Amino acid sequence: MTGSHATSVLTTRLTKFFGIQHPIILAPMTPAAGGVLASAVSDAGALGLLGGGYGDRAWFEAETAKVTHPRVGCGFITWSVTPDVELFDRALAQRPTAMMLSFGDPASLGARVKKLGVHLICQVHTIEHAKRAIDIGADVIVAQGTEAGGHGFSVRSTMPFVPDVVDLCATRSPKTLVAAAGGIADGRGLAAALMLGADGVLMGTRFWATQEALIHEDAKARVVAASGDDTIRTTVYDVVRQRAWPFPYTGRLLRNKFVEEWHGREDELGKIQADQLQKVEAASVSGDHDTANVTVGEAIGLVRDLPTARELIDSVVAQAVNRLSASSDLIRTADASLRRVK
Amino acid sequence: MTGSHATSVLTTRLTKFFGIQHPIILAPMTPAAGGVLASAVSDAGALGLLGGGYGDRAWFEAETAKVTHPRVGCGFITWSVTPDVELFDRALAQRPTAMMLSFGDPASLGARVKKLGVHLICQVHTIEHAKRAIDIGADVIVAQGTEAGGHGFSVRSTMPFVPDVVDLCATRSPKTLVAAAGGIADGRGLAAALMLGADGVLMGTRFWATQEALIHEDAKARVVAASGDDTIRTTVYDVVRQRAWPFPYTGRLLRNKFVEEWHGREDELGKIQADQLQKVEAASVSGDHDTANVTVGEAIGLVRDLPTARELIDSVVAQAVNRLSASSDLIRTADASLRRVK
Repeated sequence: MTGSHATSVLTTRLTKFFGIQHPIILAPMTPAAGGVLASAVSDAGALGLLGGGYGDRAWFEAETAKVTHPRVGCGFITWSVTPDVELFDRALAQRPTAMMLSFGDPASLGARVKKLGVHLICQVHTIEHAKRAIDIGADVIVAQGTEAGGHGFSVRSTMPFVPDVVDLCATRSPKTLVAAAGGIADGRGLAAALMLGADGVLMGTRFWATQEALIHEDAKARVVAASGDDTIRTTVYDVVRQRAWPFPYTGRLLRNKFVEEWHGREDELGKIQADQLQKVEAASVSGDHDTANVTVGEAIGLVRDLPTARELIDSVVAQAVNRLSASSDLIRTADASLRRVK
Repeated sequence: MTGSHATSVLTTRLTKFFGIQHPIILAPMTPAAGGVLASAVSDAGALGLLGGGYGDRAWFEAETAKVTHPRVGCGFITWSVTPDVELFDRALAQRPTAMMLSFGDPASLGARVKKLGVHLICQVHTIEHAKRAIDIGADVIVAQGTEAGGHGFSVRSTMPFVPDVVDLCATRSPKTLVAAAGGIADGRGLAAALMLGADGVLMGTRFWATQEALIHEDAKARVVAASGDDTIRTTVYDVVRQRAWPFPYTGRLLRNKFVEEWHGREDELGKIQADQLQKVEAASVSGDHDTANVTVGEAIGLVRDLPTARELIDSVVAQAVNRLSASSDLIRTADASLRRVK
């Protein structure tokens, strides 16, 4: 009647739990996932999470002020927040739709989240992490493979890790939801994650490369042009920034001149850290990504454009629906198949 | 009528190309994939590949003599075979159903394969490898992620790598087939691989843990009991065996006492290599897998039994069919969905 035609969507336990239309969560990346991107993702029917990162109060409060959608959550780096929980508690007091904890034991902060009745999302990198997340009552476990951008472990990859976590939850805590993360950038990845038993996906790199992401245009252009082979796990930028990531965390990012120069020479880099920090910070401002970090995962191989968040979500869901719908074409009764292949 | 009921199978470009019933290939593991396992896989309707490995003539000829199915292929380590192609040429002269080349530039050996009209399968670990495989006329590209057991790169993981290779083939060589490998051990993984755009899967670790695999029972029992977190990429056994794997190949295997002792101390290990080799070889014979290697990937997290190859293939296909068939339950028209979540 109106020119719009009926579109299909994917309904899972995750969409029902959060009352959202699409089983997609925005990774709370700092600085990419600011208030505008998180709001745009939620406005498009998915779940936007504002980046809390290392707990930079000025940044977090400025970005919180830009949030325009009522259903937005946020996420913090557990080990970084734990020493000073004031910003975390202020974020919680605003009753976000969900609080996501990544990187470190979530028990202490998780208890604060649960006490206020806020939905708790825990990102995990091993089966041992997943057991801990279940024990502290996580509502959603994000099972993240090593292909993901940013910090994580190199122990597990998404393809085998997701069904492993799904089976663990089925045994120990069937109501706990599972979102797949790492290497998912289109409807094929979403459809695959659902086949693995996930209730939805969390995407970082793909949202990093959208119009709304708070990322320099030069960095976005590099990522669109890059190959999926061009990322690496390294600690060079953590050394430069003196960020005390616990072993064995490393960060996946785009290879650039700075990484090529210093990866494997972290001890030397540490000795001239102050000089190099100046260089890196100046390069971040000027948009020189030969020196500044470009924090993305292997999914850049699938990133070939810079859509808006809404365009991206619509296309991911449409492609996933198409793939899943077409899968019936692959299925034959055994007898018919035998006739076909002879 | 007979008590059997109609079963469903998956028909893809891969099943049509090889005239097989199931889009599943056995990885040509040495020593796991001997003549009995390769034959059992082909007999069950998938494609068995006999392990050629480093080109151990006595082993290869003994296992070839055990092949009982007419549709069996084989696979070799490219860099290892290249210096002495006689065994390779003898294998080719038997017109295997397919010849798979892994690890190294396949141009020279690939030309020999193509010249005889044998189907060529190339295993790749990066997009650059995949371009090379297309250039030399591979019929099937196996896109293997770092989660796989045995040797490989740590650059790419299956979830983002497979669609990346699928897109490359779609652009450069649409007739080239793609099989996903790394972390696939059940019907969920097969269904996910098909959603990513693959034409089928290659499985190693899951077939390693079958009745027919030429693996000590102690090693199989360890793998059934192990967590998916318990594997690592290392070169310690290559150092002990003085195998000249080119950089940056490493092998993924189960962590054990030997790995814990020597990983990161490869230079020291190299100095007492002869002593340690004796220990490792004795342990392999006696079944002491604290010392001998257990070469498997992250998919061990999903390995909880030791079926026959046929039982395994039947269950993988049945689960994939079930998953794909049930996916229509996730799809709703947008309006209906909006009503549901309100």
